[in-house]
Amino acid sequence: MAGRHQLLRMLGILLCALLVTADSAPAEDGLAAARSFRQANEASILGAFAELLSIPNVASDSENIVRNAELIRGRLEERGVAAELWTLNGAPPVVFGALDVTDAERTLGFYVHYDGQPVDLDQWDQPPWSPTLYTGAIEEGGRPRPWPQPGEAVDPEWRIYGRSSGDDKAPLAAIFAALDALEAAGIEPSSNLRFLFEGEEEAGSEHLEEYLRQHREDLEVDVWLICDGPVHQSRRPQLVFGVRGYTGLDITVYGATRYLHSGHYGNWAPNPAHLLARLLAGMKDDDGNVLVEGFYQDTAPIGEAERAAMATLPDFDDDLRRELGLAATEADNALLAERLLIPSLNIRGLESGAVGAEARNVIPTEATASIDIRLAKGDDPVKMLDRVEEHIRRQGYHIVRDEPDPAVRLEYPKIARVSRREGYPAARTGMDLAVVGDIIGAAGRAADGPLVLPPTMGGSLPLYLFTELLAAPVVIVPIANHDDNQHAPNENLRLANLWYGIDLMAALLTLP
Amino acid sequence: MAGRHQLLRMLGILLCALLVTADSAPAEDGLAAARSFRQANEASILGAFAELLSIPNVASDSENIVRNAELIRGRLEERGVAAELWTLNGAPPVVFGALDVTDAERTLGFYVHYDGQPVDLDQWDQPPWSPTLYTGAIEEGGRPRPWPQPGEAVDPEWRIYGRSSGDDKAPLAAIFAALDALEAAGIEPSSNLRFLFEGEEEAGSEHLEEYLRQHREDLEVDVWLICDGPVHQSRRPQLVFGVRGYTGLDITVYGATRYLHSGHYGNWAPNPAHLLARLLAGMKDDDGNVLVEGFYQDTAPIGEAERAAMATLPDFDDDLRRELGLAATEADNALLAERLLIPSLNIRGLESGAVGAEARNVIPTEATASIDIRLAKGDDPVKMLDRVEEHIRRQGYHIVRDEPDPAVRLEYPKIARVSRREGYPAARTGMDLAVVGDIIGAAGRAADGPLVLPPTMGGSLPLYLFTELLAAPVVIVPIANHDDNQHAPNENLRLANLWYGIDLMAALLTLP
Repeated sequence: MAGRHQLLRMLGILLCALLVTADSAPAEDGLAAARSFRQANEASILGAFAELLSIPNVASDSENIVRNAELIRGRLEERGVAAELWTLNGAPPVVFGALDVTDAERTLGFYVHYDGQPVDLDQWDQPPWSPTLYTGAIEEGGRPRPWPQPGEAVDPEWRIYGRSSGDDKAPLAAIFAALDALEAAGIEPSSNLRFLFEGEEEAGSEHLEEYLRQHREDLEVDVWLICDGPVHQSRRPQLVFGVRGYTGLDITVYGATRYLHSGHYGNWAPNPAHLLARLLAGMKDDDGNVLVEGFYQDTAPIGEAERAAMATLPDFDDDLRRELGLAATEADNALLAERLLIPSLNIRGLESGAVGAEARNVIPTEATASIDIRLAKGDDPVKMLDRVEEHIRRQGYHIVRDEPDPAVRLEYPKIARVSRREGYPAARTGMDLAVVGDIIGAAGRAADGPLVLPPTMGGSLPLYLFTELLAAPVVIVPIANHDDNQHAPNENLRLANLWYGIDLMAALLTLP
Repeated sequence: MAGRHQLLRMLGILLCALLVTADSAPAEDGLAAARSFRQANEASILGAFAELLSIPNVASDSENIVRNAELIRGRLEERGVAAELWTLNGAPPVVFGALDVTDAERTLGFYVHYDGQPVDLDQWDQPPWSPTLYTGAIEEGGRPRPWPQPGEAVDPEWRIYGRSSGDDKAPLAAIFAALDALEAAGIEPSSNLRFLFEGEEEAGSEHLEEYLRQHREDLEVDVWLICDGPVHQSRRPQLVFGVRGYTGLDITVYGATRYLHSGHYGNWAPNPAHLLARLLAGMKDDDGNVLVEGFYQDTAPIGEAERAAMATLPDFDDDLRRELGLAATEADNALLAERLLIPSLNIRGLESGAVGAEARNVIPTEATASIDIRLAKGDDPVKMLDRVEEHIRRQGYHIVRDEPDPAVRLEYPKIARVSRREGYPAARTGMDLAVVGDIIGAAGRAADGPLVLPPTMGGSLPLYLFTELLAAPVVIVPIANHDDNQHAPNENLRLANLWYGIDLMAALLTLP
């Protein structure tokens, strides 16, 4: 638990984040430089971004993915960053860049991915890799318009349509423009910089771990800024301090070896659907508490800093609940943000026999549940599955890995086949770290309003590779609009978000 | 509960059934007459049966079904039974016959159905309505052979192949031959006789209730002999004293109105699969006891007569258990025959989200269980569903009949949509009734060995129409071999079973 001192410090940080503070000496110069540079160069910033967006970037399209990587490496080098392509057989290259600064006390790592989701051409209003400027969101009547001439006024509500405009080339454009702005103002970055630009995130980051292991020594930083994802649905900028981990298992329990007539055998032959219902019922109570012994044992407690941050989150639980047709949510309507900080056990599928028109008066032969488990900070995916298995054993089950053979069936009255899925732990950065305080401060200055600071997002990403393999904290630093059609046709970026991104990057590059 | 007197009486009856008793005066004359008549007339009995089997008898084949009915009516009339066809629009006719005997103290009703299951011609070794004599079961190497000449020796292991040879024209052939035998020996039946031969049993007996209501006054009997079904798997003849009733319901419980990402909302939005698991788990415990309040309240207790009869049943539970790959059965391996005498609650299907390759990391929107309930004597199908609904309500659920609308969803945290299925009660005849004792005695004399006397069968049939609408007890009197391929291709009747059937009918017709 954080002490009184840390709590007061955290509240100070939040105050910085919530108020747009005016000038805080040298760091503020970087932000001001970015703003004036951007205002003077909007047309050329957009032109350079459009060029980057015009190269197809599906991870499996090797030829084009390398063209993307080469262009990005060139842009880093043009800005004085030592850049190279790392390669692995069969994998898109990683673009790596490093810039060391005299007397810097910190090293910042910037992670971006330059690959994008595959496209369904028929569903796009213009070709996905022919970036097009619109006067607004297409759904709201936005129309295509010419790219602006130098000096022409640019409406921040305009949007650039094109694959990866939001997810995830926007941070690249922001970083390049921020570096240009500092250069133009004669301001040096305040930290050493490491750039790690991945080319297969949308294809599952299969080679990321190997890249990180091979180049671990090049990747020693004080904090990783994960530049990905959208800002809050309220359009307020956000920083996110973690992700949930993930694991899961499938459980099948057994009845007789063949379907039995429920009249001739009902009440006598065990019914696997009943068995499964009882097994699952014992795993979670009506209040949403998981009853598996030790399930919450390793979970990091929610700190004062997280509680303070959660208190500033927009209050939209009730709206969400109503939108979803729910009269109540788990744990007596506890806050969604708080529920994401403890591990969850979710039945994603349940099947036995048949319902509806296919239903027959039989005792089914087996019943299966598919379960996913979201992990909070501190939870180990393997231990969590071990605990669920121990719970199953305590209910009298013999656990098998394959379909039970006749001898096993005759030996054990209750048999559960358990298939474990691979998992990975959560990642969450303590909001009371000094560098985190500085980042919150910088983002607060870049934002034109209060920040949203969720301690974690609900989704799972393998950020543990950064926090565990590279042993550095992570902060997720999104810039794209929440309605950017990420992963969908007509992906887009609102210019106001790009402008915020440039400001944010400049503020981070000149972190005090 | 039966008193000591009744118990002693029952044991006496069982003794009769278990031992093939030699002579018990006039009744024994009927049986002896049947045996000598049959031995002298095997060829012509088989010929007459073959003629009956050669008319196609699927209930929907109106023209042929009437041909069957006409032939059967003719055969009754030839034997001095006043016979007629009852008709209803769109329904196969019922063949009704009545024979009154001077000074008879009882009226016996014989129910048989003359329609058969539809056929898949490709799967038969000979056309289903071209009855063919085989030297044994086809699967055991039986070969077709010519029909016997009068006086030719007939092997009782021969089989007649043809649709309805077992299910359910065999009892017709047996009744006709038994009447002929009595006639030839100059013996009058000892009871008034009513014959009710149905033509749409295999199509669901849709019009049976209406026929019975319209002709109730013609159908006043002391006992209905339901001549249908096979003898015991051990080949031992059996009498069965009841059937289970049936009802059922489907339950759907609800989560959010759309699938939710289990990371973003897991632990917060209620999971309907968990809800359903808890609801179902509360309905039945690990010992197989249904926990719904009042579930066993109206169930007729198992009488001493039933217990005595069950004690004589072949002990095959363990074999069955092993065959089905079960290490244990419900209620600490309680006897199957005993478990059939209490109501059961069986989950026949369970579905929520998806398992296997289709599984996704989501919180499903709903979860459904399909349940069937088998009823024992005394249980009312409507009351049983009421009790299950009350159980659901006590778990905090609001019950709806249709998909809940948004207002209902926002009002009630737990909503269950319940669809009730139509049901009907069980029928079970007390084994200590005087007429039942006489029937057991007659069947015991006809059988060449001990009888099997299950108090009920596991399956459900609408015999309540006889026990409740016609207010008479029923006894199920099967004659076909258990391996007669009932409902399947290559249906057949083993001649030994037909010979037993003739003996049995003669014994029943001359019931003391």
